[in-house]
Amino acid sequence: LTQPPPWGINTNIRLTLPVVCFVWQIAMIILFGVFIRYDEESDAHWVETKAHDNITSDIENDFYFRYPSFQDVHVMIFVGFGFLMTFLKRYSFGAVGFNFLIASFGLQWALLMQGWFHSLDPQTGKIFIGIESLINADFCVAGCLIAYGAVLGKVSPVQLLVMTLFGVTLFAVEEYIILNLLHARDAGGSMVIHTFGGYYGLSISRVLYRPNLHQSKRMQGSVYHSDTFAMIGTLFLWMFWPSFNSAITDHGDGQHRAVINTYLGLASTVLTTVAISSLSQKTGKLDMVHIQNSTLAGGVALGTAAEFMISPYGALIVGFFCGIISTMGYIFISPFLEKTLKIQDTCGIHNLHAMPGVIGGIVGAITAAAASESVYGKQGLINTFDFTGDFKDRTVLTQGGYQAAGMCVSIVFGVVGGAIVGSILKLPIWGDPADQNCFDDEVYWELPDEEEEHQGSIPPILEYNNHMIHKQQDL
Amino acid sequence: LTQPPPWGINTNIRLTLPVVCFVWQIAMIILFGVFIRYDEESDAHWVETKAHDNITSDIENDFYFRYPSFQDVHVMIFVGFGFLMTFLKRYSFGAVGFNFLIASFGLQWALLMQGWFHSLDPQTGKIFIGIESLINADFCVAGCLIAYGAVLGKVSPVQLLVMTLFGVTLFAVEEYIILNLLHARDAGGSMVIHTFGGYYGLSISRVLYRPNLHQSKRMQGSVYHSDTFAMIGTLFLWMFWPSFNSAITDHGDGQHRAVINTYLGLASTVLTTVAISSLSQKTGKLDMVHIQNSTLAGGVALGTAAEFMISPYGALIVGFFCGIISTMGYIFISPFLEKTLKIQDTCGIHNLHAMPGVIGGIVGAITAAAASESVYGKQGLINTFDFTGDFKDRTVLTQGGYQAAGMCVSIVFGVVGGAIVGSILKLPIWGDPADQNCFDDEVYWELPDEEEEHQGSIPPILEYNNHMIHKQQDL
Amino acid sequence: LTQPPPWGINTNIRLTLPVVCFVWQIAMIILFGVFIRYDEESDAHWVETKAHDNITSDIENDFYFRYPSFQDVHVMIFVGFGFLMTFLKRYSFGAVGFNFLIASFGLQWALLMQGWFHSLDPQTGKIFIGIESLINADFCVAGCLIAYGAVLGKVSPVQLLVMTLFGVTLFAVEEYIILNLLHARDAGGSMVIHTFGGYYGLSISRVLYRPNLHQSKRMQGSVYHSDTFAMIGTLFLWMFWPSFNSAITDHGDGQHRAVINTYLGLASTVLTTVAISSLSQKTGKLDMVHIQNSTLAGGVALGTAAEFMISPYGALIVGFFCGIISTMGYIFISPFLEKTLKIQDTCGIHNLHAMPGVIGGIVGAITAAAASESVYGKQGLINTFDFTGDFKDRTVLTQGGYQAAGMCVSIVFGVVGGAIVGSILKLPIWGDPADQNCFDDEVYWELPDEEEEHQGSIPPILEYNNHMIHKQQDL
Repeated sequence: LTQPPPWGINTNIRLTLPVVCFVWQIAMIILFGVFIRYDEESDAHWVETKAHDNITSDIENDFYFRYPSFQDVHVMIFVGFGFLMTFLKRYSFGAVGFNFLIASFGLQWALLMQGWFHSLDPQTGKIFIGIESLINADFCVAGCLIAYGAVLGKVSPVQLLVMTLFGVTLFAVEEYIILNLLHARDAGGSMVIHTFGGYYGLSISRVLYRPNLHQSKRMQGSVYHSDTFAMIGTLFLWMFWPSFNSAITDHGDGQHRAVINTYLGLASTVLTTVAISSLSQKTGKLDMVHIQNSTLAGGVALGTAAEFMISPYGALIVGFFCGIISTMGYIFISPFLEKTLKIQDTCGIHNLHAMPGVIGGIVGAITAAAASESVYGKQGLINTFDFTGDFKDRTVLTQGGYQAAGMCVSIVFGVVGGAIVGSILKLPIWGDPADQNCFDDEVYWELPDEEEEHQGSIPPILEYNNHMIHKQQDL
Repeated sequence: LTQPPPWGINTNIRLTLPVVCFVWQIAMIILFGVFIRYDEESDAHWVETKAHDNITSDIENDFYFRYPSFQDVHVMIFVGFGFLMTFLKRYSFGAVGFNFLIASFGLQWALLMQGWFHSLDPQTGKIFIGIESLINADFCVAGCLIAYGAVLGKVSPVQLLVMTLFGVTLFAVEEYIILNLLHARDAGGSMVIHTFGGYYGLSISRVLYRPNLHQSKRMQGSVYHSDTFAMIGTLFLWMFWPSFNSAITDHGDGQHRAVINTYLGLASTVLTTVAISSLSQKTGKLDMVHIQNSTLAGGVALGTAAEFMISPYGALIVGFFCGIISTMGYIFISPFLEKTLKIQDTCGIHNLHAMPGVIGGIVGAITAAAASESVYGKQGLINTFDFTGDFKDRTVLTQGGYQAAGMCVSIVFGVVGGAIVGSILKLPIWGDPADQNCFDDEVYWELPDEEEEHQGSIPPILEYNNHMIHKQQDL
Repeated sequence: LTQPPPWGINTNIRLTLPVVCFVWQIAMIILFGVFIRYDEESDAHWVETKAHDNITSDIENDFYFRYPSFQDVHVMIFVGFGFLMTFLKRYSFGAVGFNFLIASFGLQWALLMQGWFHSLDPQTGKIFIGIESLINADFCVAGCLIAYGAVLGKVSPVQLLVMTLFGVTLFAVEEYIILNLLHARDAGGSMVIHTFGGYYGLSISRVLYRPNLHQSKRMQGSVYHSDTFAMIGTLFLWMFWPSFNSAITDHGDGQHRAVINTYLGLASTVLTTVAISSLSQKTGKLDMVHIQNSTLAGGVALGTAAEFMISPYGALIVGFFCGIISTMGYIFISPFLEKTLKIQDTCGIHNLHAMPGVIGGIVGAITAAAASESVYGKQGLINTFDFTGDFKDRTVLTQGGYQAAGMCVSIVFGVVGGAIVGSILKLPIWGDPADQNCFDDEVYWELPDEEEEHQGSIPPILEYNNHMIHKQQDL
């Protein structure tokens, strides 16, 4: 235990990691100095804005519409994604810690990238940020954290930062195309976040394929307590998913309806996940991998349609099928992807994000195409699909088509972007672990001396051994 | 460890669990399709409703009054109840996982049952749901999760689903009688949730009495980390209890006051719990069981009176006595219940829910009977006790009587309902574990191979043994 | 393992702990009965207040502006601080449990102390409380929990309660001087909470210096899972810090801006913490101590300036330097403090609270002094710095001076108050542990029998041993 680890100098990140952190953070400060300002609702001039716009109460500030949802989303990003990935027996530090690092960098870069594409003020050349910008930054980061799930345990923190830099950049572009150019609706990001993030991660993982990963097989399972830690992540994601899907939807009924739909869809997913998981074992035992992951698929798949009038039973149906498909994905598709397509997907993001994301895109397209004035009301239809300005003459059928087009864009950006970024990450300069040292915190973390942990329990055994030594001596 | 487990085919739930999950979920979808619709605040027609009702701002949507509380309640249901029950050394998966399953089913069934009883629109035959419906569904589920605490580790997931099906049904009926017919107030559910849920679980546990449960004694304790996990549950319940008791109280002062009272009552409970726990040990050491559970009794006991003008010191007094009674319950009453009444109460829900619930009902009745216009104001009294419509002439004294009657109803429903449901659960078809396999996740879960966990620490010992082998060989 | 522990009767707290809990809680009830009442927004007369003040909607109740932030702060106090301190291998019960106890007492005492100093109604002699009072009580408690971090594992729960009694008292006085007399702004408490709490704890720890603490060295480290538990605390503190710094700032832009600044500052801190942590190890490995603690320094340092127009890049810069300074504090300053100044600081609160708090005070003073009408607007400047009443003629430069003066007050109160309280805690009557029994839950908690935990894994070894016995017998 005191011997030097068998991996070589190549996992030494003492130069690269600090340099990347410092340089990029300084770049953020400079770019923020040049571009980012408070928007009118967070600026001290708000008192004048209020008077000017005849706003009677401070409670009309968008802050009060969105802050509770924002905080829930924030918990999903840092505790949800972070702890969901702690299931491996010896990669909890990397799961929570690197998730923390890349999300903290990513949200800054996202504010800039999304700002440039979505809200650069042409007159001042500034980006004005408020609570909705923070939510969108967290959303953008989510795409990269999903991708992290595919390569968990197999990459260095420097690689993760590079992956996040490009991931956020690609995200901002595809989001601009889907939401602004195609004018598709995707409030909870079935397409923009989950489909993109899923395929981005899978594509990177394909390029970084490790034929000898079995050499780390001993580290690839969970232990009892690591599975329990992972359930913290699962539950915070599950509970707060209604906030995720409603955080940036329309004030009033838009947020209200997105919450109800997501709440119901997720409940339905839990039952079918349990059913399939139980069916998959000889004696009907449940598998923690399914409970930790597939129970969330309904939330992913309602990311587009949650704000629509999909109706409560519609949400249940979406959740129903997603639980089935996602769990079967873990049982049948993941092994196939690994053996045939050489995609090693540590957390099974294909089953939790990519597939349900695509389903969500399709559900969104169909629901949009089937929308009618009788269900939404005349103004309700305009509000829900934002049929204003350049898009005021768009029909729901056309909208359905653009929704479907949006989904294709997110897949293409994920696959192609991931392939390119994967090639960059293949360069032998990033300090990634050897095949036999994957999934091991030992590589990048100072670990506590574990001998101490069993101090309380080992003595009886040692005592036993001592006893035997005496017996032996008697011999 | 590689041998087949000693229990027989009877814990095989590969048929029953998937069938129940699928059939019930499909039934939910059909019933939701027939009955459940968005209410006017979550429907896309809200823009028209707003215009019609002269509502000037989206922030007037009930969503913004209740969503933060809803999310806190949601966390209590899934993380709070789930993790509180992880204290057993090898039942964390069952605690968190089955809690997850039955809550997800229960909330769907609750929306229907509560809808039929409380909000079925006579004209359309539909149930219109909004954020308050979701809170009430979570509340209803809480009753069943409380009952789960009594039978934790001794039942199969199929039994839990059956228990939830009937529990939610009984809950909706007793709630209808207490809140609608008796017109009692019970915003945080001291009676409706905790008293009912507590006696329902205890009654079931009585019917399912296992005389040979001592055969599982080795599994009945906690370990250091499982106790730490349980504190996650305790704290999230404790912190968010103010949201629980205020989630469906009146807008404005009603919610505000319920929060203050619950916050104070719970703080007081912690001190007396610690005091009694320390007194109960020879050297004044504290017992984690008490800290995990009895600290919450004050929140239970303020479930009825939190919205009343019980006054801050009144809330402190309630918490003071509940901490004492609940902790003494763990020390004296639980052993008595097990030995004399043959009630095996795994989590001690009698001390945490049943007794404090009854106290809460009594406190509520007294506080209501003692209400006066000088304290509440004329309109305040009407608002707080909802003395409108059929009940506009009710006096506070009468109200106190109806509150007390409500408590009796909840006890009767719990005890009788539990006895009947317990008899159903006694049928030998549900796959429950043998007496020697209780409290063991091994029965219903694929467990990780634990040998690996100690990889880091075992080598020195094995090395020692190897060393001894060599010594032996030398001999 | 069955032998009596080696420490003597002096850690027996069976008399002192229950007596202190009971007497103090009864005192709270009496004082609350005499002094504490609901304020007008939580009183049942609110319906009349509304009519009288022409308030059109219940949503104008301060409850709806502050409740979501309050709940986040509440989570920080109980889960955040509690779990952050679970990093020690065998002090998780003490960390979470004693944190729970002293916070529950402290918030009651804080409502009284802060009430007497800040909001005693001169006419009625009453203190009227509402949601903002609860937030302030939680804030006040935070100061004492910070101090707990310095003496974690070395004091008895009775000492902690005494420390909290005096800590809350001192807090209320320094807060009154800083916020009311000096009229300094300190919404997130860089000075009032963190600087005071930090120096209060360090000063107490200095007085309680244990020259033979090395005798407990075996207990002073972490284990893998205790470090993972601590990350729960870290992340909930980190995620909810925007709520902490904005909870009592001005409605509207004040809360909105404080959230944005804190969110950004904390993100920046994470990157520089990682950079310095990696630099500090030969192979660039990260140290969990840094990730758990220093990542929070940016939130501390923005406690004063978060509500000002520090601008987004300004917040990033503050976070940038705090991550560096705090991490270097763990590497260089903590060992120096221990060796040279004899300050044993278990959690490193000097690096996480004291230093960043002072930085926050300085940043606040500079930002205030540099404020201008062009940046804030005329009315914005008045609102932000509350230049009304007696202070309507104060200039920003003067304000900067008073901010700096406030910081000095908080340091003096911390150091001098801590020295006095430390002397009281040095009396040999409080049941604190011997030098060789520090950092061990065994002293104050009934611990589960750990032998059981390894039941699953030990058998193979015992089997091995049995095998050897047979071999031996063959010999």
